Amino acid sequence: MTPALLDTLREITTATITTMLLKKGIRRCWMSGPMPLAPGGGRLVGPAFTLRFVPVREDLATPESWGKPISTRAAIEAMPEGVIAVADAMGVTSAGIFGDILCMRMVRRGVKALVTDGVVRDKAGVVATGLPTWCRGTAAPASVNGLTFVGWQEPIACGGVAVFPDDVIVADDDGAVLIPKDLVNFVAEEGEEHERYESWVVSEVERGVPLPGLYPPNDDAKARYEAWKKT
Amino acid sequence: MTPALLDTLREITTATITTMLLKKGIRRCWMSGPMPLAPGGGRLVGPAFTLRFVPVREDLATPESWGKPISTRAAIEAMPEGVIAVADAMGVTSAGIFGDILCMRMVRRGVKALVTDGVVRDKAGVVATGLPTWCRGTAAPASVNGLTFVGWQEPIACGGVAVFPDDVIVADDDGAVLIPKDLVNFVAEEGEEHERYESWVVSEVERGVPLPGLYPPNDDAKARYEAWKKT
Amino acid sequence: MTPALLDTLREITTATITTMLLKKGIRRCWMSGPMPLAPGGGRLVGPAFTLRFVPVREDLATPESWGKPISTRAAIEAMPEGVIAVADAMGVTSAGIFGDILCMRMVRRGVKALVTDGVVRDKAGVVATGLPTWCRGTAAPASVNGLTFVGWQEPIACGGVAVFPDDVIVADDDGAVLIPKDLVNFVAEEGEEHERYESWVVSEVERGVPLPGLYPPNDDAKARYEAWKKT
Amino acid sequence: MTPALLDTLREITTATITTMLLKKGIRRCWMSGPMPLAPGGGRLVGPAFTLRFVPVREDLATPESWGKPISTRAAIEAMPEGVIAVADAMGVTSAGIFGDILCMRMVRRGVKALVTDGVVRDKAGVVATGLPTWCRGTAAPASVNGLTFVGWQEPIACGGVAVFPDDVIVADDDGAVLIPKDLVNFVAEEGEEHERYESWVVSEVERGVPLPGLYPPNDDAKARYEAWKKT
Amino acid sequence: MTPALLDTLREITTATITTMLLKKGIRRCWMSGPMPLAPGGGRLVGPAFTLRFVPVREDLATPESWGKPISTRAAIEAMPEGVIAVADAMGVTSAGIFGDILCMRMVRRGVKALVTDGVVRDKAGVVATGLPTWCRGTAAPASVNGLTFVGWQEPIACGGVAVFPDDVIVADDDGAVLIPKDLVNFVAEEGEEHERYESWVVSEVERGVPLPGLYPPNDDAKARYEAWKKT
Amino acid sequence: MTPALLDTLREITTATITTMLLKKGIRRCWMSGPMPLAPGGGRLVGPAFTLRFVPVREDLATPESWGKPISTRAAIEAMPEGVIAVADAMGVTSAGIFGDILCMRMVRRGVKALVTDGVVRDKAGVVATGLPTWCRGTAAPASVNGLTFVGWQEPIACGGVAVFPDDVIVADDDGAVLIPKDLVNFVAEEGEEHERYESWVVSEVERGVPLPGLYPPNDDAKARYEAWKKT
Repeated sequence: MTPALLDTLREITTATITTMLLKKGIRRCWMSGPMPLAPGGGRLVGPAFTLRFVPVREDLATPESWGKPISTRAAIEAMPEGVIAVADAMGVTSAGIFGDILCMRMVRRGVKALVTDGVVRDKAGVVATGLPTWCRGTAAPASVNGLTFVGWQEPIACGGVAVFPDDVIVADDDGAVLIPKDLVNFVAEEGEEHERYESWVVSEVERGVPLPGLYPPNDDAKARYEAWKKT
Repeated sequence: MTPALLDTLREITTATITTMLLKKGIRRCWMSGPMPLAPGGGRLVGPAFTLRFVPVREDLATPESWGKPISTRAAIEAMPEGVIAVADAMGVTSAGIFGDILCMRMVRRGVKALVTDGVVRDKAGVVATGLPTWCRGTAAPASVNGLTFVGWQEPIACGGVAVFPDDVIVADDDGAVLIPKDLVNFVAEEGEEHERYESWVVSEVERGVPLPGLYPPNDDAKARYEAWKKT
Repeated sequence: MTPALLDTLREITTATITTMLLKKGIRRCWMSGPMPLAPGGGRLVGPAFTLRFVPVREDLATPESWGKPISTRAAIEAMPEGVIAVADAMGVTSAGIFGDILCMRMVRRGVKALVTDGVVRDKAGVVATGLPTWCRGTAAPASVNGLTFVGWQEPIACGGVAVFPDDVIVADDDGAVLIPKDLVNFVAEEGEEHERYESWVVSEVERGVPLPGLYPPNDDAKARYEAWKKT
Repeated sequence: MTPALLDTLREITTATITTMLLKKGIRRCWMSGPMPLAPGGGRLVGPAFTLRFVPVREDLATPESWGKPISTRAAIEAMPEGVIAVADAMGVTSAGIFGDILCMRMVRRGVKALVTDGVVRDKAGVVATGLPTWCRGTAAPASVNGLTFVGWQEPIACGGVAVFPDDVIVADDDGAVLIPKDLVNFVAEEGEEHERYESWVVSEVERGVPLPGLYPPNDDAKARYEAWKKT
Repeated sequence: MTPALLDTLREITTATITTMLLKKGIRRCWMSGPMPLAPGGGRLVGPAFTLRFVPVREDLATPESWGKPISTRAAIEAMPEGVIAVADAMGVTSAGIFGDILCMRMVRRGVKALVTDGVVRDKAGVVATGLPTWCRGTAAPASVNGLTFVGWQEPIACGGVAVFPDDVIVADDDGAVLIPKDLVNFVAEEGEEHERYESWVVSEVERGVPLPGLYPPNDDAKARYEAWKKT
Repeated sequence: MTPALLDTLREITTATITTMLLKKGIRRCWMSGPMPLAPGGGRLVGPAFTLRFVPVREDLATPESWGKPISTRAAIEAMPEGVIAVADAMGVTSAGIFGDILCMRMVRRGVKALVTDGVVRDKAGVVATGLPTWCRGTAAPASVNGLTFVGWQEPIACGGVAVFPDDVIVADDDGAVLIPKDLVNFVAEEGEEHERYESWVVSEVERGVPLPGLYPPNDDAKARYEAWKKT
């Protein structure tokens, strides 16, 4: 992804992105569950780095397992700068996948954000690290209380959406959406124009124009919009 | 509804309203799901204007459908000033029924509030319009991603409550309740007295009186309350 | 519980407590549901005083029942100073178990906090009483709308956790956890050391040390930690 | 309960019982969850003997706990002949509260039936004991895998219904309903007449009479019914 | 619908119909919830006649309401011969929408089947009427215990699917699917060919051919199939 | 696994297996969801062969995808004789992972059984293939309607249980349980003795012995059991 493309995408709301993807027949792109732990922090864009958990098995998911080769710690060390970590926690809300220490290390490595359909633990600590986090909330227990970590950079499920490594994630106060990597350019182009059009509609509604015929536009509205664009 | 009646109801909490309705055997009056998008905004009262969605059908719920005669846009243009729009979104939380543009138009038309068991999209934009909104949260996708709009001013379900056009809605930080239109006067009268009684109970508890015998009152407490009312 | 023990526990996060209990094979100690009604209020510790509800039965759960010998009012009068009231509301989110008046009386009696897997009513009023409350949110209807109160100081379920009278409750922004009374000393001792160790790990991560080998520690990290402790 | 009363109730469907209780304002009397493990076994009536579970706590719910004074074994030995055991399993479907051995002992003690909002284990074995069982299905794990037994003959919740010891349970292929003990005579009398009336309606529908005016009856239908009753 | 079209559709499984509709981008056509009350009864096809319920409101949903102009009784009298009644019960499983008497009347009127995302009551009686029924099971209480009937032949939701009057319903042991009325001919034609092709695949698998290259077919398999069709 | 070990395990109920695993602290071994599609078919034992699905993505999960290298078809061709296929369908009940044709091919390849937390399609056809199947039921749509297949022989989740390739699966009418591969011998030995003990308990209960002191046994009962074993 070029810096210019990143800049363009950062100006397109997640709401608009879902509308652009619907034009391509894609309805399953908004993740149900991940919402900003600290709302109001703006929009972030980056390629997905995936993490995968399965349910706890008491003989495997123990504090000792944190030292094994396949561990959340090892996964974090494999994350390149600029990615958005996306963790499939199967929607489990009773075990926090990461706490302040792991989030602090992710910040150190230049990870842009954490997105999960599960929860984090030690809320105050995680917020203090400054790692932008989209999740379902907070729980005190560690991941090993309910989950077993099994790998990274595999296809995963997150909040009802299939995520493949290198798909693009965009997250803001309306949640997190996925753009399939082959559709990133399409979304950037169409989305930019769509945002422009909606800003014109807003100005029209502000001056009292009713919605029918305006949004979506009839021929008259289209003409007025084209005229406005030239100003 | 007379302005005086509206004024009286605005002073009665939704908590008290549910207790008054329980005296008439009505338990299903508080909507499960709608909570204030921007808490702390006070209490609102108005007649219900209903909107109804069914699930998406891919051949019908498309961006193109927004221009059809039966559309959310047309419904908004039919809303009289002073109503509270109540939308049956079947509890769907993955598609926002309205965004900033539609909410802005509702404000223009003098709609008092929006209540839904679904979600809205473009949270920042909706809050900026100033339309008081009770909902289950936010999602990026548009209604057509999961819902098909089918009509207005019909009986609907919202958060487990049956809503008929012109029933009265009261909403505050405890959520939204419905008063069947034939019971509005009863609730206003009984509720006003109940609020007065509870304010006396609070003063009693503040000075250390235990609850048994006070709330509900025994004969002694009733006498003291009557005496207090005369002061 | 001695004041010293209370002081020690107050310095241990609920996150750490769950990790200590996992060492004893206890995974079901964090309550799913209760979260702070007013976050940021710090950590509270105290023995559990249990309350139990069953579903509403229309002939029993009425406003009149509030005056009966087995009532929430009578239970509150039985609460000793310093306890944390824990209410089994069966996870019901459509009927508030307590409002401002009962919470005000609990404050008067020196109750430290209220924890429930249900909800409260009259949110503004409850917050105003200053009673720290962990719950699933707010609803307008009273408990009798959906629940029947049946007793106190019995074993209960709360958010998927079994609570026996005099088990110890610790609650903070990550939620509420239970420490079985026989394990309180173990948790206090191990937890204190664990907090110390994690504060060292944080300082290591801050200076750029990767997590593998550090958290959990290999022999080298253990030695460095022991050296740090002596400073 | 007299044998005559039992005989009368056995002729009244659970469907009719719920309609009779609705006349008294009682809507929460049918348990959501318990259905016959072996359908087609007819209708059973008896007083409730209650059992109560809370969630598992790993230090308490162990195979060893089965030998303690408060155990399912001790509860079974306390059951009088003719009762229907009703177990509050909090709707848990992943741990069977009883298996073949406990059910066999209940049969020996003259227990009429087992009703639970949880599940049983060893389905083939339970069916073989001949104990009529209403439950949510079957699971392999024992109760201690997910539940802790805490007592008997207390008020309980079962499938969303409050059950007090000595309330009357009636169970058939439509599930299990509770009759509050003070309403048993009312239900028996009204229910018997209602069954008679419905059998006449069936004969009318069979000969082609439309439902409006017949069910519920208008004056003409009432007259015809009264005439039929005299034949 | 011509008798020939009905005959063709009756030979196409609901499984195949969903695959044909997927070719047109329609994924929401199988209703989640309705399953045959008496499995093994074969496949049924007919136009939808819709019924709509909203939640109970205690002042409206009473046994008395059964005699009002908008009632399930009146709706049944409006059903033409040959339709399949489809009832939106909002997935409620604790109140049976119909019992034996109403089903018996529907049989008399020539209704082909009843499909609902709710439940029926008096299971034995409903089965005895011979009305083929797809539902989520059985409950003892009547509809007025949890639902209010509000109308017929409106757009409805049923099991997550939008149903419009005169869409075509096909139901068999895999459940019930909807064919949008404009796609009925397409499904009939493509479905018939698809069934033929699958029967050939079955014969190939029976003789030991592996699936890759066969299902879906590569060029060789296509040629062999075309040859088989000519025999 | 030796044939003798298989024979031993086949005589141990899934109920007993869960009790043996509990002795090792393992509570998460019974899968919630998979139940026999055709009950009464006996117990089956075999090593797990895992399959993994993630949610549908409309650009990837299409009928065309069935011909790609990573497909359910290719996975089936990789299954060795004697395995039990275990599919992680994320609990989705609205898209059948396999139909008759794929099941028929699995039978041809000597697969012993299919276990999934999802559903199958074409119920009659699947049953006809004779492949023993444990699932959550049936749906008409194909897997591509809601799921994307992503791989085989990876760690998966199934019904809340972590399954690793070559763990051992045992399934009977109480559902499906997993034995971690390192604990298979332990379960076989302890389970065999446990079954023997329970058969003695049954004979004791049959002759009227109460459960306390018998199950679990006190010293007297232990002695009588040992004596019985020698007979």
